[in-house]
Amino acid sequence: MITILNDDFSQLNSFLHEKSFSRIFILVDENTHEYCLPVLLGNMETDLGFEILEIEAGEEMKNIQTANQLWEILTEMQADRKALVINLGGGVITDMGGFIASTYKRGIQFINIPTTLLSMCDASIGGKTGIDLMHYKNMVGTFAFPEQIFIYPKFLETLPFKELRSGFAEMLKHGLIADKAHWESLIQIHKLDVEAVVPHIQTSMDIKQDVVEKDFHERNIRKTLNFGHTIGHSVESLCLSQGNPILHGEAVAMGMICEAHLAFLENLISEEEAASVIENIQRYYPYLDISDFTDESITALLMNDKKNTDSKINFSLLTGIGSCTYDHQCSQENILKSLYFYRKLNNA
Amino acid sequence: MITILNDDFSQLNSFLHEKSFSRIFILVDENTHEYCLPVLLGNMETDLGFEILEIEAGEEMKNIQTANQLWEILTEMQADRKALVINLGGGVITDMGGFIASTYKRGIQFINIPTTLLSMCDASIGGKTGIDLMHYKNMVGTFAFPEQIFIYPKFLETLPFKELRSGFAEMLKHGLIADKAHWESLIQIHKLDVEAVVPHIQTSMDIKQDVVEKDFHERNIRKTLNFGHTIGHSVESLCLSQGNPILHGEAVAMGMICEAHLAFLENLISEEEAASVIENIQRYYPYLDISDFTDESITALLMNDKKNTDSKINFSLLTGIGSCTYDHQCSQENILKSLYFYRKLNNA
Repeated sequence: MITILNDDFSQLNSFLHEKSFSRIFILVDENTHEYCLPVLLGNMETDLGFEILEIEAGEEMKNIQTANQLWEILTEMQADRKALVINLGGGVITDMGGFIASTYKRGIQFINIPTTLLSMCDASIGGKTGIDLMHYKNMVGTFAFPEQIFIYPKFLETLPFKELRSGFAEMLKHGLIADKAHWESLIQIHKLDVEAVVPHIQTSMDIKQDVVEKDFHERNIRKTLNFGHTIGHSVESLCLSQGNPILHGEAVAMGMICEAHLAFLENLISEEEAASVIENIQRYYPYLDISDFTDESITALLMNDKKNTDSKINFSLLTGIGSCTYDHQCSQENILKSLYFYRKLNNA
Repeated sequence: MITILNDDFSQLNSFLHEKSFSRIFILVDENTHEYCLPVLLGNMETDLGFEILEIEAGEEMKNIQTANQLWEILTEMQADRKALVINLGGGVITDMGGFIASTYKRGIQFINIPTTLLSMCDASIGGKTGIDLMHYKNMVGTFAFPEQIFIYPKFLETLPFKELRSGFAEMLKHGLIADKAHWESLIQIHKLDVEAVVPHIQTSMDIKQDVVEKDFHERNIRKTLNFGHTIGHSVESLCLSQGNPILHGEAVAMGMICEAHLAFLENLISEEEAASVIENIQRYYPYLDISDFTDESITALLMNDKKNTDSKINFSLLTGIGSCTYDHQCSQENILKSLYFYRKLNNA
């Protein structure tokens, strides 16, 4: 289901040849339109007609208005149930494209060609689609699998460094929650660049894929993938609502630091383990300034996290390096202490 | 999964008691708010908190704007993943409520309590949810099953006659496509009223349920349920786009007449069979004036029917009384002849 593409995209061409699609709709943003679409079109061999659907780049576009426009375009172009949507882009494109495809005429087929490290290792895998609502991330969406995921690592060379670093946060997370050896190989990387990261992508994808296969509907072990995301999502949402969006991985790196400390406060890991996790994350990520946000504004958003039930905030917390628990309910006091801990790091 | 409720709603109360929901959101329109909600609330026994979500009545409300409002309300009220949505109403409520529930936080549970004959015998069964887009019916939606369907036939007494007659069209269809005996019992009804119809509801629901279970994703036999709906949907959409919505069953009755004649033109049934079907439908349904619509406007909409593939119009057509084929592609000439046939009935 996940295929690393040859330079001639032969596996994609075989896929298009074997299936009987009626037409192709390629969803891009202005960046992937410029940098990735020419590579795709230059290698794609098919007799099918295709259309390009372009949206503006950015998380701010992942909303119901954009979804509505895309549904209307598909309708106007008379896309039928055998049409194929190709999502060519980062997490916004794969989340949004998966959502509109899985709901247009109650579901047409789609494939993901993730172009960022984040979407390769995380967003494009796992059958979650979604859009944001009122600054809450992925509040509306479906569980729907792409027919295939095609990875072309050279697309990473088209990206700014910050995007690479953002995706690297999810790779670190995969090591931390499930595979100590993966974590330890990753932290051997001193200069973060495409060359250093590419050899580790497959392992990181496999961890994600493995967890998802064990628990597609996120009833148990899949929740461990939310490590760093409870507080991380809150801060990401607050930044987005202020018109200053940050990259997902930047928020997750910050969230993992808070939640590693929280795991220590909840007696799940030792102080030394927490410190080692935190120091290594800090090696790659600059301090994220959260001084504009009160504790109340952060914890208010935690209350509406999708993972919660019965008005309790559920955390996924490390129980060691390479293992993670879920549905762990923390005291309000410890949640606030973990934020206080993060705020103090600014002066350290 | 389909339960006929006792007067004390005991089966609903048992269901709510056995499951561990966090909260209940009851979706109603202004009509079911006035006529049905008091009956539900008067009988519902639960300790759970509940909220009423009211939308305006009418197919015009089954759009993305209303869906967006409902998602926002659920978000503001911090509905969690263990919340239950109860859809109390006709097809608009069960289609819309199922859609927003199946996509809010990637899916929360919902039950249907259909209050119209149409939703009892058709819309609430089968796991299809959806909203309209640009006057195309159910262009966006999901396949998602309600946890339960509860039927309370006395709700039918709250409805105007036209609503009853609308639902009766789907019952006739169920007989025509799958059960000659059901058709023959139904056409014994001389005075169409609640008392005459209620004894036949269970059979009609069972036919729909049976077809759906055999082919949930509408790859084959489920398509037979679309008999009368290809032309019917076109005319329904045209009326809606002109601001003069008609009831779904009125459109389906008109569509069944055209498509019965079309089945004869395509040599699938005899002229006598077609005539008998058409005459019996005419006994219950007044002529629907389509003189405002050109053949071109009707056939243009046929082209965007969800059932089509490869730019061909697929019909589900009777092959006898009680049997039906699907994916039958008709000549443009015969489609136009069937519309001409219907136009002539006005003067007959």
